[in-house]
Amino acid sequence: MIGTILLHEIVGTAILLLLGGGSVANNILARTKGFGGGWLMVNFGWGLAVFAGVYTAYKTGGHLNPAVTLGIIAHGASEFAPGIAVNVANTAAYLVAQLIGAMIGAFLCWMVYKNHFDAETDPGKILGVFSTGPEIRNPLWNLITETIATFVLVFIVLVFGQTPSGLGPLAVALLVVVIGICLGGPTGYAINPARDLGPRIIHAILPIPNKGGSDWGYAWVPIVGPILGGVIAGVAASLYI
Amino acid sequence: MIGTILLHEIVGTAILLLLGGGSVANNILARTKGFGGGWLMVNFGWGLAVFAGVYTAYKTGGHLNPAVTLGIIAHGASEFAPGIAVNVANTAAYLVAQLIGAMIGAFLCWMVYKNHFDAETDPGKILGVFSTGPEIRNPLWNLITETIATFVLVFIVLVFGQTPSGLGPLAVALLVVVIGICLGGPTGYAINPARDLGPRIIHAILPIPNKGGSDWGYAWVPIVGPILGGVIAGVAASLYI
Amino acid sequence: MIGTILLHEIVGTAILLLLGGGSVANNILARTKGFGGGWLMVNFGWGLAVFAGVYTAYKTGGHLNPAVTLGIIAHGASEFAPGIAVNVANTAAYLVAQLIGAMIGAFLCWMVYKNHFDAETDPGKILGVFSTGPEIRNPLWNLITETIATFVLVFIVLVFGQTPSGLGPLAVALLVVVIGICLGGPTGYAINPARDLGPRIIHAILPIPNKGGSDWGYAWVPIVGPILGGVIAGVAASLYI
Amino acid sequence: MIGTILLHEIVGTAILLLLGGGSVANNILARTKGFGGGWLMVNFGWGLAVFAGVYTAYKTGGHLNPAVTLGIIAHGASEFAPGIAVNVANTAAYLVAQLIGAMIGAFLCWMVYKNHFDAETDPGKILGVFSTGPEIRNPLWNLITETIATFVLVFIVLVFGQTPSGLGPLAVALLVVVIGICLGGPTGYAINPARDLGPRIIHAILPIPNKGGSDWGYAWVPIVGPILGGVIAGVAASLYI
Repeated sequence: MIGTILLHEIVGTAILLLLGGGSVANNILARTKGFGGGWLMVNFGWGLAVFAGVYTAYKTGGHLNPAVTLGIIAHGASEFAPGIAVNVANTAAYLVAQLIGAMIGAFLCWMVYKNHFDAETDPGKILGVFSTGPEIRNPLWNLITETIATFVLVFIVLVFGQTPSGLGPLAVALLVVVIGICLGGPTGYAINPARDLGPRIIHAILPIPNKGGSDWGYAWVPIVGPILGGVIAGVAASLYI
Repeated sequence: MIGTILLHEIVGTAILLLLGGGSVANNILARTKGFGGGWLMVNFGWGLAVFAGVYTAYKTGGHLNPAVTLGIIAHGASEFAPGIAVNVANTAAYLVAQLIGAMIGAFLCWMVYKNHFDAETDPGKILGVFSTGPEIRNPLWNLITETIATFVLVFIVLVFGQTPSGLGPLAVALLVVVIGICLGGPTGYAINPARDLGPRIIHAILPIPNKGGSDWGYAWVPIVGPILGGVIAGVAASLYI
Repeated sequence: MIGTILLHEIVGTAILLLLGGGSVANNILARTKGFGGGWLMVNFGWGLAVFAGVYTAYKTGGHLNPAVTLGIIAHGASEFAPGIAVNVANTAAYLVAQLIGAMIGAFLCWMVYKNHFDAETDPGKILGVFSTGPEIRNPLWNLITETIATFVLVFIVLVFGQTPSGLGPLAVALLVVVIGICLGGPTGYAINPARDLGPRIIHAILPIPNKGGSDWGYAWVPIVGPILGGVIAGVAASLYI
Repeated sequence: MIGTILLHEIVGTAILLLLGGGSVANNILARTKGFGGGWLMVNFGWGLAVFAGVYTAYKTGGHLNPAVTLGIIAHGASEFAPGIAVNVANTAAYLVAQLIGAMIGAFLCWMVYKNHFDAETDPGKILGVFSTGPEIRNPLWNLITETIATFVLVFIVLVFGQTPSGLGPLAVALLVVVIGICLGGPTGYAINPARDLGPRIIHAILPIPNKGGSDWGYAWVPIVGPILGGVIAGVAASLYI
């Protein structure tokens, strides 16, 4: 059981970050073919990255996100996915796997765009491929933005279970597309602590020519906001459904 | 029953306005990450906002729009959704909930983009996140545009019931995307009285630094047009189906 | 039977042209909100216009296009849609309805964008909302482009019947999106004689301030090319399937 | 059996290249209607080209790509598609058909855009419609990029079989969209040896006024990388599932 959780959540989250991070790299790094492709391109990139990642982690429900895992606990569910009980050991396996997977995905993304990272001279763009940062730095309001955006994600994912369609993981993917379009403007929609922290660690480690600091001062916002949003959504969904 | 209608239509419409308004904010407010993302981005934003909102209001059929509720009455249906009879009390609950939900959603959208509203100096852009306005002001033709656009929405939503697919709420979402792309050019496609009036009230109330007037002189157009279009569509669909 | 064909194909084709034409109007006419939205926006506009129109014409199979109707005949099918036999009277009803529907749709599109047609000073843009025209005028190669593009449409529509999915009309819509993106560059992808001829007639009639000629010299290309492509596709699909 | 494989894989791959190549032509060749439509337009073009091609090759599983065929072998599957055994003769039929189909598709694409190829003066753009090339030439890292991108394609296609949805070929299409958005920036995502080699041969043959060389020095990268990625994915999926 633990092995399945680790395997699926690591591989699924790695694919999420490889693809999602790649959409940002293609949009902003020097001399890419998709340079300046725009925000909608990045939104479809992250959304369909979720599509690919959730399909991959089919045995574990494709959480790929501690905010989802913690939201399910707050919701009072008895299972994380069919056959996987909610308990401390499994929770730890999900969270650890998501962080490791995000780190692996960020590393693979760096490999894919190696030449373009080397050619890039703006440290802000290099960090931007790995982790999120606010356009207007204001920790309280940035936190509120991340909390609301993650609330929408987790609340509606829990509601999806009430009216299944034939869309499968595409429903979650489209939800991530719309959150990016609509709520991503201020902070870049981390909405997932592992998605932000894992790549930030990799950014700190990798030897990229013109990289600057990893902006650890902001790192708590995309961790705390999504956890708050996910937990509140889990409780709210229990009252709502 | 009344409680269910109020709860689902309030929460669903709030999510619709939070997301939809956010797509406009991201496109036009100062210093957002999606600044200048373009009309197609906004169209996908509103369309998928409907996707999220309709899923959320799964017990009430996800109207989220007085033009839909009134169109269903004009259509002569006996139920608003499975188990919810068409009667005066339920109608009032739908309409009140949609207006309240739209106001809450617009307020949440303001919270998400608080820093960017504060940094914005163009009153027209600030109002544009909340409510619609015409590019060429001409009340009669603006009314015709809103009436035709809402007719298309409500007529085809009623036709959807004749040939169900596996798409679920995605079908309505794609319909809103195409209405935005194709019929949104002159007036910004309110196609929903609550979507326009609720946020306009919030705009009038909120203390935003550089906001101007709420353009109440135009406010009747996106109320009357969508109601006309919805009611005509309901009658026409009865003749057509 | 004839009445059903006329009603559904007229209304469905009218919705196709109202929406599709509107996507072009929004992209190119003066002072629209979607001005300069780009080719992909127009492609999604026409594709999802097919989505809406095909759903609407659910009793007649949603042809909306003489090239489809003639392609089905060339394919040797016995029915145009469940319960509608292939015969001369029904064929005539389909073709007449498609032309009338396209004219009505183009007229409604003009109503929606009335103010913007009046504000537009470029006759080429005004005609462009109604009918297609080539970027590089060369009748033979323009004809080949329209023939190949329509072949792809009709051939794959006929193949869809072999492997039904849960997508319904969305499959055809996505096919029209990709034909627009990929094969629309030289001639603007009429791929439908009614879609081009009906609006061209309306363009010739309507009193638009700065309109020029209706370019009747080119009008045969988007009629002959799509008919050729549709008929060849019908025969080819018989050999293929 | 061999005849079915040849017919379906040739026609399906021809449609893939006709459409996919056309999306690039529309984006970059002189005087097209979609000129400068952008990377996302090209991504939807190639993704939905796969959608159309896979539907077309419905009897052979719609491989359209030697990396998929070889990945299925490496995966240890007993059938390429229902009723088509994995053996040497069938493998050869798939590979030959894919190369021939890609050549035919590239030729048809040239016919559709004939006037625009003739009007184009940049040899790099002319070759770019046919075959891929790196933005930053570095064979080792270009190879790594193609290998990882194809790994993602083939691995997830094999995983799709574990959790079927109602999406059909749309799932693979969306996967190709996201790979293009996210991993296509450095090399233009061949992710398919036939897709690159077949059109390169056609480029070398066709008499296009301002064409330059066919860049045979790079041609091995989009052959070897996708084969490596596909085979590794086949083995990895066996361990994973």
